[in-house]
Amino acid sequence: MIKITLPDGSVREYPKGSSSYDVALSISEGLARNVLAAKVNGKVQDANLPIEEDSTLQLLTWNDTDGKSTFWHSSAHLMAEALEALYPGVKFWVGPPLENGFYYDVDTNGVSISNDDFKKIEDKMLELARQKNEYQRIPMAKDEAIKYFEEKGDEYKLDLLSGLEDGSITFYRQGNFTDLCRGPHIPNTGFIKAAKIMNVAGAYFKGDQNNKMLTRIYGITFPKQKELDDYVQFLEEAKRRDHRKLGQELELFTFSEKVGKGLPLWLPKGAMLRERLENFLRRAQVKAGYQQVVTPHIGGKQLYITSGHWEKYGKDSFQPITTPEEGEEFMLKPMNCPHHCEIYRARPRSYRELPLRLAEFGTVYRYEQSGELHGLTRVRGFTQDDAHIFCREDQVEDEFKKVIDLVLYVFRALGFENFSAQVSLRDPENKTKYFGTDEAWDSAENAIRRAAAEKGLQTVEELGEAAFYGPKLDFMVKDALGRRWQLGTIQVDYQLPQRFELEYVGSDNQKHRPVMIHRAPFGSLERFIAILIENTAGNFPLWLSPDQIAILPISEKYEDYANDVFLTLQENDIRGYVDHRDEKIGRKIRDAEVNKLPLMLIVGEKEAEEGKVSVRRKGEGDLGSMSIEEFITYAKAEINKNIPQFGQK
Amino acid sequence: MIKITLPDGSVREYPKGSSSYDVALSISEGLARNVLAAKVNGKVQDANLPIEEDSTLQLLTWNDTDGKSTFWHSSAHLMAEALEALYPGVKFWVGPPLENGFYYDVDTNGVSISNDDFKKIEDKMLELARQKNEYQRIPMAKDEAIKYFEEKGDEYKLDLLSGLEDGSITFYRQGNFTDLCRGPHIPNTGFIKAAKIMNVAGAYFKGDQNNKMLTRIYGITFPKQKELDDYVQFLEEAKRRDHRKLGQELELFTFSEKVGKGLPLWLPKGAMLRERLENFLRRAQVKAGYQQVVTPHIGGKQLYITSGHWEKYGKDSFQPITTPEEGEEFMLKPMNCPHHCEIYRARPRSYRELPLRLAEFGTVYRYEQSGELHGLTRVRGFTQDDAHIFCREDQVEDEFKKVIDLVLYVFRALGFENFSAQVSLRDPENKTKYFGTDEAWDSAENAIRRAAAEKGLQTVEELGEAAFYGPKLDFMVKDALGRRWQLGTIQVDYQLPQRFELEYVGSDNQKHRPVMIHRAPFGSLERFIAILIENTAGNFPLWLSPDQIAILPISEKYEDYANDVFLTLQENDIRGYVDHRDEKIGRKIRDAEVNKLPLMLIVGEKEAEEGKVSVRRKGEGDLGSMSIEEFITYAKAEINKNIPQFGQK
Repeated sequence: MIKITLPDGSVREYPKGSSSYDVALSISEGLARNVLAAKVNGKVQDANLPIEEDSTLQLLTWNDTDGKSTFWHSSAHLMAEALEALYPGVKFWVGPPLENGFYYDVDTNGVSISNDDFKKIEDKMLELARQKNEYQRIPMAKDEAIKYFEEKGDEYKLDLLSGLEDGSITFYRQGNFTDLCRGPHIPNTGFIKAAKIMNVAGAYFKGDQNNKMLTRIYGITFPKQKELDDYVQFLEEAKRRDHRKLGQELELFTFSEKVGKGLPLWLPKGAMLRERLENFLRRAQVKAGYQQVVTPHIGGKQLYITSGHWEKYGKDSFQPITTPEEGEEFMLKPMNCPHHCEIYRARPRSYRELPLRLAEFGTVYRYEQSGELHGLTRVRGFTQDDAHIFCREDQVEDEFKKVIDLVLYVFRALGFENFSAQVSLRDPENKTKYFGTDEAWDSAENAIRRAAAEKGLQTVEELGEAAFYGPKLDFMVKDALGRRWQLGTIQVDYQLPQRFELEYVGSDNQKHRPVMIHRAPFGSLERFIAILIENTAGNFPLWLSPDQIAILPISEKYEDYANDVFLTLQENDIRGYVDHRDEKIGRKIRDAEVNKLPLMLIVGEKEAEEGKVSVRRKGEGDLGSMSIEEFITYAKAEINKNIPQFGQK
Repeated sequence: MIKITLPDGSVREYPKGSSSYDVALSISEGLARNVLAAKVNGKVQDANLPIEEDSTLQLLTWNDTDGKSTFWHSSAHLMAEALEALYPGVKFWVGPPLENGFYYDVDTNGVSISNDDFKKIEDKMLELARQKNEYQRIPMAKDEAIKYFEEKGDEYKLDLLSGLEDGSITFYRQGNFTDLCRGPHIPNTGFIKAAKIMNVAGAYFKGDQNNKMLTRIYGITFPKQKELDDYVQFLEEAKRRDHRKLGQELELFTFSEKVGKGLPLWLPKGAMLRERLENFLRRAQVKAGYQQVVTPHIGGKQLYITSGHWEKYGKDSFQPITTPEEGEEFMLKPMNCPHHCEIYRARPRSYRELPLRLAEFGTVYRYEQSGELHGLTRVRGFTQDDAHIFCREDQVEDEFKKVIDLVLYVFRALGFENFSAQVSLRDPENKTKYFGTDEAWDSAENAIRRAAAEKGLQTVEELGEAAFYGPKLDFMVKDALGRRWQLGTIQVDYQLPQRFELEYVGSDNQKHRPVMIHRAPFGSLERFIAILIENTAGNFPLWLSPDQIAILPISEKYEDYANDVFLTLQENDIRGYVDHRDEKIGRKIRDAEVNKLPLMLIVGEKEAEEGKVSVRRKGEGDLGSMSIEEFITYAKAEINKNIPQFGQK
């Protein structure tokens, strides 16, 4: 008998050689039906593999990331079987699972595979799936394996084999398809109930453009048709909300080849969105005791030698800027902290000034390979809602709590109610790579833990995920499509205060070194706005909407009245425009809806005569006729309702 | 007889060979007594030189720039005479007049001259002045001149002589001093009634550091002691108001060697000042129909090749930034216009959208030699309150008028009531160096003239001062010390629209090229704030003051009440701090005064009990006791009183 320890800590005894499937079956038949693979002593393996010794066991189903991964890897094999059946003579390179689905790189033997073929492949996959063919694991001697693929004339698998050691080689076979594969796999093809080929692309063999171009076929599968339907709908929704698409349609931002890749130009509406977000946070930060500073976008190279950035990132960065003067070199600033350290050093500091909280909407420039750039989420220039808190060691916990309050205020005010956080700690096995004393680390890690717990934050702890200069707390939000995004961060830093020789005179009249806390609730305005666009599908809350109102005159006879209304609203800080076009009112309303205008004010003869406006609200429809004063009162109340003040519950 | 035309256009006849002094004497003895020199046919010359032909004549007195210049040049000779008398064996290089005073570069023959010697030199100068020695003009053959200085053993004047042509050489002699000099000079030393040696510094012969170091002695003189007294007082006042000094004392900004010269770091109070100024202009600009945009601080080199900046300024600029990716080069942006052109080009434009007014508080970087840098007035990175108006040719005049309104609003709101403007036009003699058609230039120049006239602007016109890309209007303000500063500018540009191939579809459905107008009311935030500091001596208007209130608890017993008051005021957007120090109230008041706090709220037992504050206003003294609500009402009214809304009279 062997002892099997389950994730809940319970220990059960089974005959030696029992499989994970046997264990599942001993618990419940329903569970056994859903087991895709198992994690035995931390390693994922086939569910039907015998267990020979005392082990920990986690049964993997569709709900586990590793379970999904195994499912999709097996699906890649199923797609290969289908392709072999449909296109005899095709050969295969590698077919890994992805975060969503899988692909296989295929030498199609000259056949061109296009969107028109997807249905045929899907049908064949499902036909083969219905056969419930077992995925059989076949250990294989290397010479036998070579012989097999030599006979098949498969140079790709021979290439793969050449890198493998004898004794570690396995084949997997399901139905008529045999592949060189380390596994693991699901029990049989019958688990796969829905399949979709997503895309086809070219991919050079081994990623080398001197090699043959293979066909990379992307697919995804599910254990239920409903899940595939949901996924397809999710993709359509994500596409509809794509911030690159909406950013262009709503005229928020643009890119220019001459300005350069990854360098967004903010159009008036996008600039307004930024301004609203900045002012929103600025106001909260004033109340939270922050002081704004403004620093240049370049710094002398010496600044980054002192900070350590030059040594660590210099070669992979935007390169130094020289001047006609000899010996001068500047760098585009990749972060604001060194500048803020210099502000701290501008004069002697006393303990009475701490915590000193310096904030800046600081635009930084970081080199990213052009192939890595993506809309606003991966750019080369972005504005951090940055701040650095210089404090005493014993103030760290309290400051952490205050920052958590601020971050959660920001998330909630912007409609992200679903968030969690990760506490990134030192790797206790490998303390040498971290900067700072054991005591300081223990104290800061415990301060973060206590602060997070007191603020009721749902956290996971990750060992070894801390920065080398200190532990940190990273926030994740879940968006309307259920996707998780890493947003704000709070980081403790012991290193920069030392590198910049920061000091304060304590109440004991002695010199002490402050601790630094880096923090950014948005992370960056660019990334945050990208996520905000996708989360709201461009339907920004009223206070944030670049245009809050569109005034739509029914005909040009009411243009003057429309202009008067516009000016009155402008005086009252209500933003928008008059639609002066010579279009029918129906068209004007439709266009305002497409432009996601929260409020439309329709003005015609009746309104002009009575000094009123007819109000339509997006999502609510007709709100009837109001006097200008009534509308201003209504709009201001609606604007303020949506934006709670920091420090109020 | 010859005809002399005076500046008022009157023509008088005099015997051939009459001097300017004779003409003056014929008009009035008083005038003659004040004539320092004369401009004959546009050339400044000695007042006693005979006039041999029909001429225009302007008599120069202390009130004329050229008069002052001549006075100070003659004073340099007087100082040289004094130095020769005091330090036999000294030799002289050059001694030009300056904007204020003069200097002479002297080889002191090993004698060290310091502040302690200034009085002695001044006294000797005045002693010699009282002798009323005539400045005698002596034409001299070159060989005679060489002989004279060879005998004297004066290598400096021999060096000067070597560059002069025979026939053009004159000596000037007054008293015992003879100098090689082109002149002109004042009639005699008796005009000089007050003298002050300002400063002494080292200066390499011919500015070459391989040459001998000479002693540069700076002085200034006046025709009346009272004027010297006023000037000394002006200097003290200017020193007291120096924005570099006040900037440090009031903790507005700082510089760091590591960040780099000419790159200001804005401290919290300075950043608040910037924010207030930005918001002030932003609000006015919204009403004036501008739209804010935000663009990166770098641009691809191609952007500046297109704009023409690369060719024109590339070598003298911050040099291009390369990246690890091949073929990529970026420049720090020296101006915002190319980026705004790219925004214009982001999609096709219709005449209906024009004028399109894109505004940005855009931080730009321009290389200046480190020796040229000066506080905030000459920096390497600065934020322009920039905007570019893209409009039709026939909209230029109207746009100019609107910009003038905005600029004057800004000046007046910020306390600059005394301003004038310069219209910079083409050089009609040399039209080829300008870009754009004759018609366009004539039309734009006339539009500027008409706009300025209609707005009642006091202007001077300067031919040949236009930029090569278009005519412009530059604004000058006079500060509290009577100094003139160039601030805002409005410029027409025909060139960039062509270089960027900007177009709009007109009402005729044809493509047309827009005109661009560059404008910046502040010019730059850095320069404007420097001037604002010096103009107000740091006593900013209430709405602009970084801290508006200081709350001063009489003892620590009232700290809690002081904090409550602070939070209530903060909720009402009134900025400031509580003075928590353990100091006597008298000291707290004094320090708040030194920090130029507009309002002090003193809180003690009585105030805490009654829920009141005792209010002191800088410059007005005690305003008595107010409830918090009364104070908020008072403060808000005072804040708003000082800042008129744009568009209201």
